[in-house]
Amino acid sequence: MADSSTSMRLRLPLLCIILEVILIILFGTLVEYDQHTDAKLWNENRTSARNDYENEFYYRYPSFQDVHVMIFVGFGFLMTFLQRYGFSSVGFNFLIAAFSLQWATLMQGFVHGMHHGKIHVGVESMINADFCTGAVLISFGAVLGKTSPVQLLVMAIFEVTLFAINEFILLSLLGANDAGGSMTIHTFGAYFGLMVTRVLYRPNLNKSQHRNSSVYHSDLFAMIGTIYLWMFWPSFNSAITHHGDPQHRTAMNTYYSLAACTLSTFAFSALVNHEGKLDMVHIQNAALAGGVAVGTAGEMMLTACGSMIVGFLAGTISVLGYKYLTPVLESKLKIQDTCGIHNLHGMPGILGAVVGAVTAALATPDVYGKGLERVFGEVETGQWKPEIKGGFQAISLAVTLGMALFGGLVTGFILKLPIYGAPPDTHCFEDALYWEVPGEEEGHSELQEVASPNEMEKLSS
Amino acid sequence: MADSSTSMRLRLPLLCIILEVILIILFGTLVEYDQHTDAKLWNENRTSARNDYENEFYYRYPSFQDVHVMIFVGFGFLMTFLQRYGFSSVGFNFLIAAFSLQWATLMQGFVHGMHHGKIHVGVESMINADFCTGAVLISFGAVLGKTSPVQLLVMAIFEVTLFAINEFILLSLLGANDAGGSMTIHTFGAYFGLMVTRVLYRPNLNKSQHRNSSVYHSDLFAMIGTIYLWMFWPSFNSAITHHGDPQHRTAMNTYYSLAACTLSTFAFSALVNHEGKLDMVHIQNAALAGGVAVGTAGEMMLTACGSMIVGFLAGTISVLGYKYLTPVLESKLKIQDTCGIHNLHGMPGILGAVVGAVTAALATPDVYGKGLERVFGEVETGQWKPEIKGGFQAISLAVTLGMALFGGLVTGFILKLPIYGAPPDTHCFEDALYWEVPGEEEGHSELQEVASPNEMEKLSS
Amino acid sequence: MADSSTSMRLRLPLLCIILEVILIILFGTLVEYDQHTDAKLWNENRTSARNDYENEFYYRYPSFQDVHVMIFVGFGFLMTFLQRYGFSSVGFNFLIAAFSLQWATLMQGFVHGMHHGKIHVGVESMINADFCTGAVLISFGAVLGKTSPVQLLVMAIFEVTLFAINEFILLSLLGANDAGGSMTIHTFGAYFGLMVTRVLYRPNLNKSQHRNSSVYHSDLFAMIGTIYLWMFWPSFNSAITHHGDPQHRTAMNTYYSLAACTLSTFAFSALVNHEGKLDMVHIQNAALAGGVAVGTAGEMMLTACGSMIVGFLAGTISVLGYKYLTPVLESKLKIQDTCGIHNLHGMPGILGAVVGAVTAALATPDVYGKGLERVFGEVETGQWKPEIKGGFQAISLAVTLGMALFGGLVTGFILKLPIYGAPPDTHCFEDALYWEVPGEEEGHSELQEVASPNEMEKLSS
Repeated sequence: MADSSTSMRLRLPLLCIILEVILIILFGTLVEYDQHTDAKLWNENRTSARNDYENEFYYRYPSFQDVHVMIFVGFGFLMTFLQRYGFSSVGFNFLIAAFSLQWATLMQGFVHGMHHGKIHVGVESMINADFCTGAVLISFGAVLGKTSPVQLLVMAIFEVTLFAINEFILLSLLGANDAGGSMTIHTFGAYFGLMVTRVLYRPNLNKSQHRNSSVYHSDLFAMIGTIYLWMFWPSFNSAITHHGDPQHRTAMNTYYSLAACTLSTFAFSALVNHEGKLDMVHIQNAALAGGVAVGTAGEMMLTACGSMIVGFLAGTISVLGYKYLTPVLESKLKIQDTCGIHNLHGMPGILGAVVGAVTAALATPDVYGKGLERVFGEVETGQWKPEIKGGFQAISLAVTLGMALFGGLVTGFILKLPIYGAPPDTHCFEDALYWEVPGEEEGHSELQEVASPNEMEKLSS
Repeated sequence: MADSSTSMRLRLPLLCIILEVILIILFGTLVEYDQHTDAKLWNENRTSARNDYENEFYYRYPSFQDVHVMIFVGFGFLMTFLQRYGFSSVGFNFLIAAFSLQWATLMQGFVHGMHHGKIHVGVESMINADFCTGAVLISFGAVLGKTSPVQLLVMAIFEVTLFAINEFILLSLLGANDAGGSMTIHTFGAYFGLMVTRVLYRPNLNKSQHRNSSVYHSDLFAMIGTIYLWMFWPSFNSAITHHGDPQHRTAMNTYYSLAACTLSTFAFSALVNHEGKLDMVHIQNAALAGGVAVGTAGEMMLTACGSMIVGFLAGTISVLGYKYLTPVLESKLKIQDTCGIHNLHGMPGILGAVVGAVTAALATPDVYGKGLERVFGEVETGQWKPEIKGGFQAISLAVTLGMALFGGLVTGFILKLPIYGAPPDTHCFEDALYWEVPGEEEGHSELQEVASPNEMEKLSS
Repeated sequence: MADSSTSMRLRLPLLCIILEVILIILFGTLVEYDQHTDAKLWNENRTSARNDYENEFYYRYPSFQDVHVMIFVGFGFLMTFLQRYGFSSVGFNFLIAAFSLQWATLMQGFVHGMHHGKIHVGVESMINADFCTGAVLISFGAVLGKTSPVQLLVMAIFEVTLFAINEFILLSLLGANDAGGSMTIHTFGAYFGLMVTRVLYRPNLNKSQHRNSSVYHSDLFAMIGTIYLWMFWPSFNSAITHHGDPQHRTAMNTYYSLAACTLSTFAFSALVNHEGKLDMVHIQNAALAGGVAVGTAGEMMLTACGSMIVGFLAGTISVLGYKYLTPVLESKLKIQDTCGIHNLHGMPGILGAVVGAVTAALATPDVYGKGLERVFGEVETGQWKPEIKGGFQAISLAVTLGMALFGGLVTGFILKLPIYGAPPDTHCFEDALYWEVPGEEEGHSELQEVASPNEMEKLSS
């Protein structure tokens, strides 16, 4: 089935090995344990006043593990909805995530601040690397089924680099808040991926259309991904906020936003179907938009009620996007968005950025008390200008959109080179191109075993 | 397949939107961040003696996440064992849980104590809301496959309200211990659900009997639910116990109870089968009874050995219940209990309440030392009367049974109104009534693709 | 299908009940809460200087839960790759793990130190018991599909006992470091299991060969196991290291090792396939070897770069082992290793032991500072001889190999007795022997329902 032009025999091993060797060399040269992971440094600083329970590990590792589950199980299984692309969905997700988190450690370290020429790593850098990986996996959703693993790794190389630069501009230069990544992760990942899939437009993709859909069991596998993303999103948004009240508040705001989002998703999914039937695509995806949409404002004093309003809106626009916008994007703008990332990450990400800007513009010392500087970092007493802060948040969104679209454009053209073994139009959404797929179906093998030819005759007579 | 009377086109969206709007208004009016989530309050109270690591978040959030997994993955996938009801099992579980946790926040807040007219929320209220949701999902198990999502939401409205009242009577008025909810969650949820399904009795349910069973893969999906419930039950029972030794001890007692329960489940599952074969229904459900049965006594000095005895008994009665009691309940008492919640939550819940009462009645200051008040709250030195405490525990069980049966009766009759789009007897346990179900099976689509008509002829000749 | 000789009707219940009764008696006689779980002891020791957040629970319980997930979901689902053995894979994994963790608590308690004649239990003993269980499950992988549950329980009895003895020799007598169990868990479990399966060699196993393979969906279920093992391995390796920097560092080293291992696994999986296609067996297993291989050195100052080199090598040898060594082991040495545990746990375990010995031999006070004693326990200032430490690490590997092979040999012969209801050669890898398996396939039931005979005629005409 796979002709030689799609063979991964040499391309994939070569690329993986070269990349890993480069990573190992760069890590050996540049990466050091930080104060909380280094045996010498931690124990020098540890005094009776600073005990082991103050190690960053205990504040963040449970959140890290939840994020890790979202990246590998959440994104991986969410994409198994396709009937013949489960191996690739989970497998390529696994591969590009494992690469991206290493590469992100370096890129974020380069850009966000070296310490005496060294990149310091610990649980915070691990969370940040997983976050950056999340953006790559969002973009993967747009091109799912239409790209070779080599293309995906190449995409990851560029996207991680640009992610780190954009993140640096937002967090360090513009002083933006974006703890849960409405802008840096979701908006960036979505529009980057949408631009890549636009450049890779396949006019004859309908030749693989019969495989571009789900079957009963593949939808259940996808629900594993959905539910894990949904449950752990509070940990995602709160993973790198300040200790104490911000971490606690962010988790709770996200919890309420997602709960409200689920109700609006079910409501609009039934409403837009002419028989009133629910659509698994909406449940699998739109119910998560509430997490995306409080990615910026979640750490602020958004209130539970405010979070629920945002979540409700996010679920609504996401379902409506799947129903009415995605077909238009494909037919008019030639954007073939396999997973509908525009509806799950794109529009809710922008909503999240706007909500963040507005919430920041309304933040007063009266509401936040001494906690103001814990949320908005750079504040000095008496100098807090929330409207300026809100403005910078809005600029951050614009910068992110620009970086994502430009980066996706360039990366798309690089991925168009005919050297990566991309699948032909007739064999998109098909595992057998890149995987040894077991040949027989269980139903048949069981029948063969249980019923010999003679028994079959008896049964049919 | 769905006639207009079961259409969710208007009913479900209307109900969801109205409920969410009411929730948003009530949250906006009544709900405030608590001392650990409010930026101003936490930072006012934070001093050098009270550091961020004392924020409730770090004591409870990992437990909360485990509970959250049990609610959404555990309960959701446990019910996917039905061959044609996987979408509804996971999906409706998702919907009613997302609604219930919001509604529970309000109801529990109303009843358990307002602070100056406001409900305070934080990680503890999140855990309590998830707990209340658990009771609704237990009841869902009894009516699984025979109810529309609108019916389920209406059931949740009533059940959550009564749950909060019952919980208030037990914990506040009677001063009962029930950290893991043997009474408040399991006994209440089970007998409430059993009464609802009794009122909704369908004499002609056998018309859908061929769909009321599992297939190979659906049993494996259900095992995902089972195993997650089993693994995280120690976190469930310990999630809201006092910090320190009670949380630690509860988790451990539950761990041993479940381990012993698993052995008795396997033992009796093989024993009651005339070929000695294991039954997936038992493994999926009865192995969990050990967690239910130490839900009250788990925080007490039950000892590992005591926990194992309780777990062993729980597994035994649960398997025997599935084998011998469930058929009788259906044929004699007209209780159609789809998931057998009487065996998993009902009887083990009562066992747990009894074990709790006995263990409390045997508690002495000699054994608990200064820890006595950390377990039994209200104790004043020298005034500890364990036998009275045990009596109150027993009264609590009786109150719970009464509230559950009465509440289920009323709710059942409300759910009987012919306005909710309930499935007809011929289409119970069928996803296609409420969901867009992918039409083709993978095996067939693959065959079509691999084999053209000509090839098919060759194969069959 | 099952003849009487494989019936579990009496054998399994008797064994389970007898074992659990023995466990309960021994727990009742010998086991006590430790200082962190006992109500009296913890509250006596609790002072203003020692608050609840210092309870071991908060340091280790999140890690414990991750380990618990690996044991029950990770190992359980990893083995569901077989097309007709999913119930047994998850179910027997569940049974023998639930038994082993209880038995391990006793055996490890006996051997590692009684306190005034009592075994003390808390979260550390729970983690250690789960670790020991891990070794049994590794061995289970070698004999998967060829053993009855009674045989597996008997194997667990012996293996747990020997595990505890070997662990005592290594950790207490030889003072070895092995926090993540490269030696005690992986090497021991692998070579024990390989020797057992050697003794149980079945010359006619090819009669069941058609069932000894995967189907599409079973491979996806197995990926659930793989991904959970992969994600939580950092928690596994760090679960019982010292508080603070060692726990933090171990988790991070494991994270990088696994990431690098994933890239080498994909690279070599494509390279060794003549069409360049990826093999699910490699992805499911070899990608995990990086966690095994830093099980000893992970807590040391291995550096991220060092971890990546080790992970890369581990993935490489593991894939090559699956491709080239496993067939030879079967044909020449008569070792039928169903899951290929030699490639996932055996060789990477030995690699991990060697890496640990070398890293220990290179450890200097200059690098570790005051943290040296936190990693290498027994160090006194000025007396640190790393090369001797490295030697003891190497001796530990030799001891482990000897204990495992000897223990496996004896246990294998005990398991060979014809009294356990082992499956006949014709019915290996078959759930129906020990389970009530639902008879019909979903595809067919759906067809029957949707299309009546008349409709079928119309469709086919």
